[in-house]
Amino acid sequence: MTDLSNRLIKSDKSLYINGVSYATCCSRTKYKNRDDLLLVVLDPGSYVCGCFTTSTMPSAPVIWSKKTLKKTSNCKQKVILCVNAGNANAFTGQEGLLACKAKALSLANIFKCDEENILFASTGVIGERLPYEKIIQRFDYLKENLSTFGLRSASNAILTTDLKPKTYKSSFKINNELFTISGFAKGSGMIFPNMATMLAFIFTDFAIDRETLSGFTKKAVSESFNRISVDGDTSTSDSVFVGTTNKKELKVAREKRPAALNAFYKEIRKAMVDLAKKIVMDGEGAKKFVEVTVKNAKSLVRAREISFSITNSLLVKTAIAGEDANWGRLVMAIGKTKINVKTEKIKIYMQDSLLCKNGQGVETVDNAGLSRSLKKKKVNIVVDLAEGDMEFTAWTSDLTEDYIKINADYRS
Amino acid sequence: MTDLSNRLIKSDKSLYINGVSYATCCSRTKYKNRDDLLLVVLDPGSYVCGCFTTSTMPSAPVIWSKKTLKKTSNCKQKVILCVNAGNANAFTGQEGLLACKAKALSLANIFKCDEENILFASTGVIGERLPYEKIIQRFDYLKENLSTFGLRSASNAILTTDLKPKTYKSSFKINNELFTISGFAKGSGMIFPNMATMLAFIFTDFAIDRETLSGFTKKAVSESFNRISVDGDTSTSDSVFVGTTNKKELKVAREKRPAALNAFYKEIRKAMVDLAKKIVMDGEGAKKFVEVTVKNAKSLVRAREISFSITNSLLVKTAIAGEDANWGRLVMAIGKTKINVKTEKIKIYMQDSLLCKNGQGVETVDNAGLSRSLKKKKVNIVVDLAEGDMEFTAWTSDLTEDYIKINADYRS
Repeated sequence: MTDLSNRLIKSDKSLYINGVSYATCCSRTKYKNRDDLLLVVLDPGSYVCGCFTTSTMPSAPVIWSKKTLKKTSNCKQKVILCVNAGNANAFTGQEGLLACKAKALSLANIFKCDEENILFASTGVIGERLPYEKIIQRFDYLKENLSTFGLRSASNAILTTDLKPKTYKSSFKINNELFTISGFAKGSGMIFPNMATMLAFIFTDFAIDRETLSGFTKKAVSESFNRISVDGDTSTSDSVFVGTTNKKELKVAREKRPAALNAFYKEIRKAMVDLAKKIVMDGEGAKKFVEVTVKNAKSLVRAREISFSITNSLLVKTAIAGEDANWGRLVMAIGKTKINVKTEKIKIYMQDSLLCKNGQGVETVDNAGLSRSLKKKKVNIVVDLAEGDMEFTAWTSDLTEDYIKINADYRS
Repeated sequence: MTDLSNRLIKSDKSLYINGVSYATCCSRTKYKNRDDLLLVVLDPGSYVCGCFTTSTMPSAPVIWSKKTLKKTSNCKQKVILCVNAGNANAFTGQEGLLACKAKALSLANIFKCDEENILFASTGVIGERLPYEKIIQRFDYLKENLSTFGLRSASNAILTTDLKPKTYKSSFKINNELFTISGFAKGSGMIFPNMATMLAFIFTDFAIDRETLSGFTKKAVSESFNRISVDGDTSTSDSVFVGTTNKKELKVAREKRPAALNAFYKEIRKAMVDLAKKIVMDGEGAKKFVEVTVKNAKSLVRAREISFSITNSLLVKTAIAGEDANWGRLVMAIGKTKINVKTEKIKIYMQDSLLCKNGQGVETVDNAGLSRSLKKKKVNIVVDLAEGDMEFTAWTSDLTEDYIKINADYRS
């Protein structure tokens, strides 16, 4: 998808954040000729917040990381994030948790830190035993190869069926001081409704208290990763980590601090929205990016449910793949939510063309123009409920034959 | 799907029900070289019950038929069912309802009956104006060509993307008297959760009071058509009609009547389950029939929600298309329901092989045998929640590349 592709990252140097370093290698647990194991090490003084899958069957690393983040890490020590791709370590019972424990003991020993400073994420096949002994064997190598310029390699090491790495970098000024956010993510299927089979890691040098950063993380996730859907499936492994090295203190008068924090929040959200859209664009088999906005709703809940009913409908997604303005399927997707809307008041737009109003189709639609416009890589759908003033936007991709090809033989 | 195909109907004569006649023709509203318009006429003394889509945006014929069935038809007159394929007459505003009214006036005049005796069903594209004038022009021809042996032609005339007609016929004895049920259905996409883009018509000669037949219809629908899912989408047009000609009176002592009625109910349900399974088997692009049973649940609601979460999961359905025993995706589908289950107690079976227990995979699975078994056309999945004694079974098909091909260019 050329018009929406990741921004090209000319050099790893531009992704540098003082106090964050990376190392990757091939763990030989699943893949043979690519790096699939990542360590991220944050300098003492850093801390990391997280947000996780709502699945009632979370993976062992999710259970570990949630539990660990409830405790307070030791700020005088390093913080370690250990990520592997190819094996989700999910539904692996007590042994899955023991795998986390064994890895944590080894990392704590190598990096001279407490277990509270160690976090895990895994992505890949569910239900297979994680050969964690092989992973532990690589820790010394990783420690020796840590580099502050390793974000691009890191973004590659966490991929599974993704076609391309997804990275983000922004430098921004608040009160004339320069700060930096950089991040990377993976995820291309099981993207609904809360996060995805997705992992995201976002780091900054902006000094901020732990509690505020944790609140910002949850809020920004709800406005980004929780608005995307590729196939309506929810992973056992979704995890978003946001870490700060606290290296750059914002010098600002007390009364100006709320505004400055708000500016920082917007930067965190911008990073997440950017990575969320890149996940959708790289959705399995995706050829088009679809934005669905339900506006003028009585409540956010109604707008959200109708948006997701549209983004999750196979018939809508296949029609878009076929570049067909089949708005009858949008009507179907609205109708199946069981939300009572005023049929005769609804307006439905595709690519800014009004397709129906007064409970029936608009006869003056420029079908030739609309057909041309649906050949674009970006498709927008707007449903105007004309019943209130709430709005919700969700993002998805089209559904193509390639999705089936990718998922019919994922394990083989 | 050879092993699960419709039973071969050797002759239209075998589908005969005394008092029901059919006529079909090409209406030239959508298709060119096939019949797409059907009239079913039931003799005076008959009545028809119905069950309809739960969509909040029902089609005009659904609105018409629901309203009509709330009144009592005139038993001294004929009952007329008029069905067309290719145009759903849905989201067509006031004009869609006027189309029904115009057709009803014409039919009432031709068949000398009240409007209360006329029912409609339409299936096809949503949001296009129904050229009802063309349909009305064909009514005289249809009246002249009514035949009691026309069920097979009727079953063909209502199809859209279906690959084959779906018919049912059963003769059965209650108290040593012979009765008959015959029926036909269409439907291959938008099959969830309540009925489908599906129409079904079931007729019998069994004399029964209107209220009991209506109750039986709703109950049997909940145990058949409401248990199937092809793509998780709900149509605006779903309709099931059950009619009796009341031609054969059951002569039985009053105290034996409840048992006899129960026997009749089971026959009605059998007809619906048979047609429901045929709809799934003929699901768009379907190559396999999948039965998902959730057993030993605390409640029916829990069993139902988990069953449907599995049958509606794209990742599960694509794994089955790929003949891959990827039970991790079943774990994912259970987890995403947000129903708290005891992970360590759950057992998951595919093709009768126990794949996981105690919160992790079973290591002694005969993978080669399971792989062979997954090549079969019928796949069964059982989830044992070990928390109670309720059970729910849902039926679906696999998801193949052909589904995308069919739906990406349906309108063109």
